[in-house]
Amino acid sequence: MRDAFIVGVGQTPVGEHWDRGLRELGAEAVRAALDDAGFETAGALYVGNMLGGCVNGQENVATLVADAAGLLPVEALKIEAACASGGAAVRAAALAVAAGACDVAVAAGVEKMTDGAPDGIIAGLATAADQDYEASHGMSFVALSALLMRRYMHETGAPREAFAPFAVVAHANAATNGNAMFREPISAEQFGRSALVASPIGIFDAAPVCDGAAAVVVCSQEALRAHHKPVRIAAASVATDTIALAARSDVLTLSAAAVSAQKAYAAAGRGPKDMDLFEAHDAFTIITALSLEACGFAKRGEALRLAAEGCIAPGGCIPISTFGGLKARGHPVGASGAYQIVEAALQLRGEGGENQVKGARRALAQSVGGHGSVAVTHILEA
Amino acid sequence: MRDAFIVGVGQTPVGEHWDRGLRELGAEAVRAALDDAGFETAGALYVGNMLGGCVNGQENVATLVADAAGLLPVEALKIEAACASGGAAVRAAALAVAAGACDVAVAAGVEKMTDGAPDGIIAGLATAADQDYEASHGMSFVALSALLMRRYMHETGAPREAFAPFAVVAHANAATNGNAMFREPISAEQFGRSALVASPIGIFDAAPVCDGAAAVVVCSQEALRAHHKPVRIAAASVATDTIALAARSDVLTLSAAAVSAQKAYAAAGRGPKDMDLFEAHDAFTIITALSLEACGFAKRGEALRLAAEGCIAPGGCIPISTFGGLKARGHPVGASGAYQIVEAALQLRGEGGENQVKGARRALAQSVGGHGSVAVTHILEA
Repeated sequence: MRDAFIVGVGQTPVGEHWDRGLRELGAEAVRAALDDAGFETAGALYVGNMLGGCVNGQENVATLVADAAGLLPVEALKIEAACASGGAAVRAAALAVAAGACDVAVAAGVEKMTDGAPDGIIAGLATAADQDYEASHGMSFVALSALLMRRYMHETGAPREAFAPFAVVAHANAATNGNAMFREPISAEQFGRSALVASPIGIFDAAPVCDGAAAVVVCSQEALRAHHKPVRIAAASVATDTIALAARSDVLTLSAAAVSAQKAYAAAGRGPKDMDLFEAHDAFTIITALSLEACGFAKRGEALRLAAEGCIAPGGCIPISTFGGLKARGHPVGASGAYQIVEAALQLRGEGGENQVKGARRALAQSVGGHGSVAVTHILEA
Repeated sequence: MRDAFIVGVGQTPVGEHWDRGLRELGAEAVRAALDDAGFETAGALYVGNMLGGCVNGQENVATLVADAAGLLPVEALKIEAACASGGAAVRAAALAVAAGACDVAVAAGVEKMTDGAPDGIIAGLATAADQDYEASHGMSFVALSALLMRRYMHETGAPREAFAPFAVVAHANAATNGNAMFREPISAEQFGRSALVASPIGIFDAAPVCDGAAAVVVCSQEALRAHHKPVRIAAASVATDTIALAARSDVLTLSAAAVSAQKAYAAAGRGPKDMDLFEAHDAFTIITALSLEACGFAKRGEALRLAAEGCIAPGGCIPISTFGGLKARGHPVGASGAYQIVEAALQLRGEGGENQVKGARRALAQSVGGHGSVAVTHILEA
């Protein structure tokens, strides 16, 4: 396989874009990434998107974005892996370059959630769950997360308040990210007082419904230019698990996340200790905790202690959600994996601004779909 | 890029599978393909599917199929390109093997359309069109095809009846395909008398709503075994065009189909005259005609003459839809591209049975999405 490098990044602000759709958001991110790379066009475009069909009435989203971004007749395909779709699109672009199918590929993620009626969004998100055995019986995506969190609290004896640091750190980091949806810091006390959505999950445990798009340009060694600050994709891996939680022998092990992380570490010849930051899939605080354990940053049941000790904050042993994460930058579901790669690349280019992790050389980014039924892991190196 | 070979094929019958869902259909095709190849598992699974989100309430379909097929924790991603999704999944598997990411990859296509209410299916299919500029104004997918057909008739002076050979040949070929949905031959007279769906499109111009799944196993040269009858993927290419018909300078040129065919011919070092059969995207007779012209089998406006001369029938200069095509084998939309590759591979293995194209050495298969807004073209060689 040829090496593949990220040489351009682009993103729209995350928020409620009432005046813009998939086409405008996707094109803005793609053009920004190409401009950043100094390329006019690309040989392929892979677009991560989850809810286009059921919420926006628009499949064929990759073609839509290719057209709006002025890239026709480029190869363009949509890649879907529930909430991990954006990460999966980056994986696809890396493969296309690695295979030699093209020298320059763009990976984007785009989601437009605010078009949907609230019950439509709830039903849309539940399409990541098992329709036959979960969703059709009334389990929403938040409800399934609540079951996971309740079980974790039962096994570890931790109170709800112990999950506060994940939200507090995310909101603090988002405060200095101009593209973040929530730029107001919150306190642990506010977290504790927050309204419950599906007990024990409160409003500050959960990422918001929002719109946004992010994109990266991936190129081969041959296509690198002098002005680039290339970030090498040292590993890109995908793994899967059962969709239905009830089918798992141990719901507190995100085995897809663990397997994809192990595959990525093996491919990069690195381990958790070599990572300078971790863009985690913090859609719910419980998923952040389980991801930290799955990726080897904490042993089983010890992620909350890691968080309590400040390890996940800036300057800690493994800073996470460095631009606010899904929780506070926002979680336009099919786009979030692409935002993670954009943010990790900015860190490794030393362009993190007030959010810069000092001396960052290696980053882990992990995008998780369907409560861990699919996970995409990237290791990036400066 | 490494060479990639098709060494296993699997399919379910196409029809109304009221007792089976995406999970069961997909797994059956995947296991059949792996059994045919003599492999127990694979390094990756790419699943083409279009309507899972909006019709079945199920995204994350690749993970669903991976689980049901016993392939966890395999890399599994859904690939969507409207009605070309199945072909796009084959492209993705070929890329993964070409890149060296794995030695064995499975590409599948699966669609379950009969679960949906009729208006849900109509809305679902319209997600391949432009939601903002076509679908939301009431244009259904059939209506858009009718506009294309009307324009073609206007420019060429051809009557509606001149499209009959495409349907007649497809139904005749399906008669000997045990997996086909419609196994009763039809006559040109029946075609002429058939009820109109959206004038000038009649019931025999259009492919049916149905369920089905097909899969192929793709492997590297290194993974070939003595019992295999490898079919080499000589080319796999994708191209795009505007989704909205109104945005095209010439609606009767399927430029995405033409560009992807040209890319495929260039990659394979072949031309139209080298092809022994053509698995065309005959979702509507007008699309068959335009595809024949886009792929260089007929000049502009001359596809109907080609058909009238018997060129597309078995024994003709370019037999099409050799197992019945989308029209008569059936068109479970996201699966059809995978069925085409299964059928082309069977032809090149000399396992076409009563449908065998004598001496077939090279096949062109083209999967078209959204009235030509995206096209995936494969050239396969025995």
